[in-house]
Amino acid sequence: MTRDMPPDLTPRILDAVDAAFDDEVDFLAALTAHPSTRGNEQAAQDFMAGALAERGYAVDRWQIQLDDIRHLPGFSPVLGPYEDAVNVVGTHRARTNAGRSLILNGHIDVVPEGPLDMWDSPPYAPRVADGWMYGRGAGDMKAGLASNLYALDALRRLGLAPAADLFYQSVVEEECTGNGALACLARGYRADAALIPEPFAEELVTAQLGVLWFQVHLKRRPTHVAYAGQDANAIEAAIPLISALHEMEARWNGAAHRHHAYAHMDHALNLNIGRIEGGDWTSSVPAWCVFDVRMAIFPGQSIDAAKSEIEAVLMEAARGNAFLKNALPEIVYHGFHAEGYALSDDKSATAAQAIGALDLAHGAVTGEALERTAITATTDARFFGLYADTPALVYGPRAEAIHGFNERVDLESLRRVTKATALFIARWCGVEEI
Amino acid sequence: MTRDMPPDLTPRILDAVDAAFDDEVDFLAALTAHPSTRGNEQAAQDFMAGALAERGYAVDRWQIQLDDIRHLPGFSPVLGPYEDAVNVVGTHRARTNAGRSLILNGHIDVVPEGPLDMWDSPPYAPRVADGWMYGRGAGDMKAGLASNLYALDALRRLGLAPAADLFYQSVVEEECTGNGALACLARGYRADAALIPEPFAEELVTAQLGVLWFQVHLKRRPTHVAYAGQDANAIEAAIPLISALHEMEARWNGAAHRHHAYAHMDHALNLNIGRIEGGDWTSSVPAWCVFDVRMAIFPGQSIDAAKSEIEAVLMEAARGNAFLKNALPEIVYHGFHAEGYALSDDKSATAAQAIGALDLAHGAVTGEALERTAITATTDARFFGLYADTPALVYGPRAEAIHGFNERVDLESLRRVTKATALFIARWCGVEEI
Repeated sequence: MTRDMPPDLTPRILDAVDAAFDDEVDFLAALTAHPSTRGNEQAAQDFMAGALAERGYAVDRWQIQLDDIRHLPGFSPVLGPYEDAVNVVGTHRARTNAGRSLILNGHIDVVPEGPLDMWDSPPYAPRVADGWMYGRGAGDMKAGLASNLYALDALRRLGLAPAADLFYQSVVEEECTGNGALACLARGYRADAALIPEPFAEELVTAQLGVLWFQVHLKRRPTHVAYAGQDANAIEAAIPLISALHEMEARWNGAAHRHHAYAHMDHALNLNIGRIEGGDWTSSVPAWCVFDVRMAIFPGQSIDAAKSEIEAVLMEAARGNAFLKNALPEIVYHGFHAEGYALSDDKSATAAQAIGALDLAHGAVTGEALERTAITATTDARFFGLYADTPALVYGPRAEAIHGFNERVDLESLRRVTKATALFIARWCGVEEI
Repeated sequence: MTRDMPPDLTPRILDAVDAAFDDEVDFLAALTAHPSTRGNEQAAQDFMAGALAERGYAVDRWQIQLDDIRHLPGFSPVLGPYEDAVNVVGTHRARTNAGRSLILNGHIDVVPEGPLDMWDSPPYAPRVADGWMYGRGAGDMKAGLASNLYALDALRRLGLAPAADLFYQSVVEEECTGNGALACLARGYRADAALIPEPFAEELVTAQLGVLWFQVHLKRRPTHVAYAGQDANAIEAAIPLISALHEMEARWNGAAHRHHAYAHMDHALNLNIGRIEGGDWTSSVPAWCVFDVRMAIFPGQSIDAAKSEIEAVLMEAARGNAFLKNALPEIVYHGFHAEGYALSDDKSATAAQAIGALDLAHGAVTGEALERTAITATTDARFFGLYADTPALVYGPRAEAIHGFNERVDLESLRRVTKATALFIARWCGVEEI
């Protein structure tokens, strides 16, 4: 069932997005200027809370409490305190409640910018060139936060509001745990559907992988280099462990193990050695080394089973190593314990209706069919889909070099996504006079 | 030629060392309590300058100026400023000048202590147990600094002083460049011989290796892990480079390449990957990685030729790597450019006399012959031997776990070395009434 819209509403909504689009770009630049890496999101969240409050939304700004979420499915372990982890939700309560409720979700955290000399311009001084905005987080996913906000603004410009409750969420921790989105669930926010404009090039994400993070700690007594061969070197001891993990990665990618949404992909599951640190003096044989690993899993693959296999693989490799056999590695989980999620496996009528509404909205803006994609990353969509029985549509603008240098988002793509989002809201929630 | 000593002087010197040995141990503990890692030597140097001044030595305390040494043979490149690099020399000027002059040299810098939880007790809270003193630097080489000072004290206790000029040196930077010892040369300190009580277990070091330090920087544009296989991973790109360096290490250790003092050692030259750091986010494919390498060379092996071969090896390996062929590694030299040095190749009469004097001193204390050893590390001895035509005797106490956790020095060994040093001074310099 898809709600009909007055025939003249579509062009009016499109015009309303265009009318405010320069403002939207300015808003995106101001938001991107906040260096909201993990632990540093508060100023950006203040900015979001202010933007919601000045538009009349009821703003809920709260510090995440681990005790509220650690017992919930989907929780990911964290290291260190959560004093700086603040979520923001703006709530619109409908007068008529004639339509279906909606969560518009986006994350405020960005990944580290890396060495500054690799950027052509400073990562937190966003600039526009040739139709792209450059900056860390401009694509992943502050453009999505802007799109969600300005889609609602377009309706307001027409004297309209969603005819159902709508929750605008700006969450932390998408890039490492998802505990920000989980905390929104724990706080009771629920709706009939969710939309997350992650930057997947105007395609609908119908499947996403799960992700596990773990740290491998190697430690043993060191000595002066004059007295030791490489067998005693904690840094070099990491090498056979990394090899063993890649062998596991190849097995997990085998055709027999694939989720059907990834059947055509030879290497959907990427193992990444994302960080390493070891040793402290060039002429001391390093006694310690720590490396961080990200490994993907398919939808339906058990996290506990994946962890058991990872541990077995590491221990078997360690027992074959001169350095490690007497000092087995310690495996520390901090960060993602994320299951995979396939919207395409959700056979509910609600899911079909939500997808249908987005199909129509996308078609009205672009004149083209909405493409489906199975992505090789995770998003917060899993919380809605797996733990709240809520179909979660991931659909956002085109961006490039996310997690890289010179990250950028295509501003015309942002314009189209904002339009499609506004149309989707109008169709899904219905509209009412303000 | 070895000077005769009055027959009763030897037992009186031995007794004088015993009489002050508890004080010497206290002094060593106080010195070891200073965490004088590179850049943090100043408080320890103040302590040394005070100890020398209160004994009446003329104290020269100066900040090393790179412009004074960078043009000299034996100079090692450094990164960063030298504002905190302070040498201390205490000078005794003889009244009679009847004997041969001497430099007593030791280094005040210690290597980093590493993770504290690997120590059984805090590294800078020295403790004595079962005849050992534990602490970072207790062995390498604050025991040597104590021995040099208390050997002179023993003579003074008998109303005697060296009958030749004597320079007590406490230098920085032995553990990374040797520029502290070089700066002493540049300042004009010269003598007929030098003694350096590095902790080589009461053996005379007759050959030491050279050491090269270099950093390998790998850098390329990163991306989200969802879009990249391991070919793009800067951390994993280090692995084939490390392998190539180990192949070079094996070649250099080949029998045909060995210096005669190392002919019996299959693996005198150790290559050490001492530090590594790379990446900044578990779910970002790392765009950069830096690792630090220490490689040894034989006495007589050319530093320039060694560097050329290292560079060629790294570049050849890089050209065969998918990540690196488009972003060749950068090689940065900072730290040791140390040539090897073999006292046993010094065929001068002075060298023979100095060794003979130490033979006698060691024999008088221990009743045993002085063993010779070719070590697989470097020491500051090379500056005296190679660049100042001064035989440099490396002879010090027994220590364990230098550069490791629970570093410790054998206190009875320290007592014997202090005695042997006092006897050596008396024999080499002669003595005069104060």
